[in-house]
Amino acid sequence: MTGLSALILVNNNFNMGNLVNEFNEYRTKMNKVILSKNNLVIKRLWNLDTNTYEDGVLDKKTKEMLGLVASMVLRCDDCIKYHLGKCYELEVSTDQMYELFAVANIVGGTIVVPHTRRAAEYWEELAGEKIAG
Amino acid sequence: MTGLSALILVNNNFNMGNLVNEFNEYRTKMNKVILSKNNLVIKRLWNLDTNTYEDGVLDKKTKEMLGLVASMVLRCDDCIKYHLGKCYELEVSTDQMYELFAVANIVGGTIVVPHTRRAAEYWEELAGEKIAG
Amino acid sequence: MTGLSALILVNNNFNMGNLVNEFNEYRTKMNKVILSKNNLVIKRLWNLDTNTYEDGVLDKKTKEMLGLVASMVLRCDDCIKYHLGKCYELEVSTDQMYELFAVANIVGGTIVVPHTRRAAEYWEELAGEKIAG
Amino acid sequence: MTGLSALILVNNNFNMGNLVNEFNEYRTKMNKVILSKNNLVIKRLWNLDTNTYEDGVLDKKTKEMLGLVASMVLRCDDCIKYHLGKCYELEVSTDQMYELFAVANIVGGTIVVPHTRRAAEYWEELAGEKIAG
Amino acid sequence: MTGLSALILVNNNFNMGNLVNEFNEYRTKMNKVILSKNNLVIKRLWNLDTNTYEDGVLDKKTKEMLGLVASMVLRCDDCIKYHLGKCYELEVSTDQMYELFAVANIVGGTIVVPHTRRAAEYWEELAGEKIAG
Amino acid sequence: MTGLSALILVNNNFNMGNLVNEFNEYRTKMNKVILSKNNLVIKRLWNLDTNTYEDGVLDKKTKEMLGLVASMVLRCDDCIKYHLGKCYELEVSTDQMYELFAVANIVGGTIVVPHTRRAAEYWEELAGEKIAG
Repeated sequence: MTGLSALILVNNNFNMGNLVNEFNEYRTKMNKVILSKNNLVIKRLWNLDTNTYEDGVLDKKTKEMLGLVASMVLRCDDCIKYHLGKCYELEVSTDQMYELFAVANIVGGTIVVPHTRRAAEYWEELAGEKIAG
Repeated sequence: MTGLSALILVNNNFNMGNLVNEFNEYRTKMNKVILSKNNLVIKRLWNLDTNTYEDGVLDKKTKEMLGLVASMVLRCDDCIKYHLGKCYELEVSTDQMYELFAVANIVGGTIVVPHTRRAAEYWEELAGEKIAG
Repeated sequence: MTGLSALILVNNNFNMGNLVNEFNEYRTKMNKVILSKNNLVIKRLWNLDTNTYEDGVLDKKTKEMLGLVASMVLRCDDCIKYHLGKCYELEVSTDQMYELFAVANIVGGTIVVPHTRRAAEYWEELAGEKIAG
Repeated sequence: MTGLSALILVNNNFNMGNLVNEFNEYRTKMNKVILSKNNLVIKRLWNLDTNTYEDGVLDKKTKEMLGLVASMVLRCDDCIKYHLGKCYELEVSTDQMYELFAVANIVGGTIVVPHTRRAAEYWEELAGEKIAG
Repeated sequence: MTGLSALILVNNNFNMGNLVNEFNEYRTKMNKVILSKNNLVIKRLWNLDTNTYEDGVLDKKTKEMLGLVASMVLRCDDCIKYHLGKCYELEVSTDQMYELFAVANIVGGTIVVPHTRRAAEYWEELAGEKIAG
Repeated sequence: MTGLSALILVNNNFNMGNLVNEFNEYRTKMNKVILSKNNLVIKRLWNLDTNTYEDGVLDKKTKEMLGLVASMVLRCDDCIKYHLGKCYELEVSTDQMYELFAVANIVGGTIVVPHTRRAAEYWEELAGEKIAG
């Protein structure tokens, strides 16, 4: 591989994972700041949040989809990104994702559309990373 | 069976299905009023709403759970009742339902708790009807 | 007219205006309680609220429709009732009202539907009072 | 005391504490139902909720006022009732309460007004119980 | 015209239409991505959305204002931008727009203020383009 | 001090106050645009907003905390920034701030978490400016 191709590959990876990386890095950085203040309620709430999505009588994948659709109708872009990442890891397909988007748009109305655009963009990036890998 | 016992049985049935019947009757009555006005956008939106929850790459049961959790975090008691009814028909178990309630409460916070109380009450009634039947 | 007919007429009026009267009476009673506490911010906000809907470069009727659609997507049943009353006084037609309902349902999604049912019921009552009058 | 006076006294107490009692009884009844299902996330969230409002570097009274104003702008009537009860126990004065109501109405707008009416009614009842006692 | 003037003109146009162009381009790009997935519910919802704002017993201009005020109180910046664009095309005046902003701020409270700032900025740009043209 | 150190100091100040300055400058600029349109309802609402947070039977500091927690559960980042600035001026401590954050997260749920991250970042900057001064 020539140096030029290598450079293009790096750039491609960077572009494709741009939104994903930025989201994850900011999230990690600020979670550290918040946890460093040792507020017990916040710490316990965050632990509980993790437990909520673990396998139970509903499996993880279903629970992450529940978390995602809830985040979409509440129109919380960062929450959406987080659950999109988890759904991607748990192998929700693109067609399944769009059926979920459809539920969110019907329940929450056209005000969910701009958030669906950003969700679709993030989902493309997640899929792009896989292809690049 | 004496007349008195019969009366008690009727009353029991009535009490158990009280919330469910009231909800369904009011919903049916007012939907008729609204549809009688022939607003095409509303008619088409309602048709589309029905299509949204049909089997696709996600099955009906998953979609109804998505609709329910969305309704819970948006705190729409009547929407919650509707999807609880559907989830009950589609044989979501009580344990599954409470895991769904947990997601709704974690994502939406303690303001979802009063709606969870009313959802739990309605779910008991739905289960009660089955037992009574 | 016999005493009995008179009684029936009174009852009819009462039934038709039931929701409307209950809403207006409770609103009046509690507004008095609140204003009796002499909180200046609340008093001034309420005055300002009245001014907001007065004729300007947009006429009253348009402004009341704006207030109504805003109340519908925010799903505030009592706010909806208030603006429905005003829209009725300002001679918004039933067809116009349902086009407004359609906007509210498209923007706000199916979670607005239960509020639309209650709005439709209240609107019928308002129209019923006119017929009775 | 005659039988009649006793009856009137009972009625008075009943009327004054009507909203408060109904709220507390329904809340207690449904909390039992929910907790009986042993969903750990819900149980832990409810424990955490209790801890949140305990004395810390902010005192209980301030925290209950924070919980109340949050409930008001989110327009959750039952959450409002709960925190009104706590604020009353912690001796928030009526004038302080109305300054809190003013913040909620300014931040959340006139859609908070109907919830303020119900809050004011509940607050009167709480104060009435004290007088009656 | 000198090269320098041409450059300035380009820059002016660019600056004036910056927010408007960015919004429209991103919207167009992501709508294409979403529609390429062929989810029928989403496609039909979007068609329905277009129909909602067509002339009926309420004219387009009124309907776009209804859509705008609904978007403002729901605090959806991209929805606001979309309807601002439509209102501008349909010749809503600046004074009319600010009366609409006033309704949104009164109904939705001071949390609508930051969205009003961004709406005002976008409206200035829309007006600026006209002047530049 | 060498030129280089001076440059670093300037940069540090700039970096620390970046979010705070950007927020304040944009807010000031757009408030001017809005007020220049002379809409009386908006002007009076903004005056009233200022009055709401003045010392009364609740002190300024408590009121600003009420405004902040309300802004957090309503997830309005710019409103949060504004009240964080005021709380900082009124000497709310970092531990007090995090107890307030905890109330907001418990009442409003995990969808408040991303807003808490941005609030924490802004709060760090405010504290950084003090140290720099």
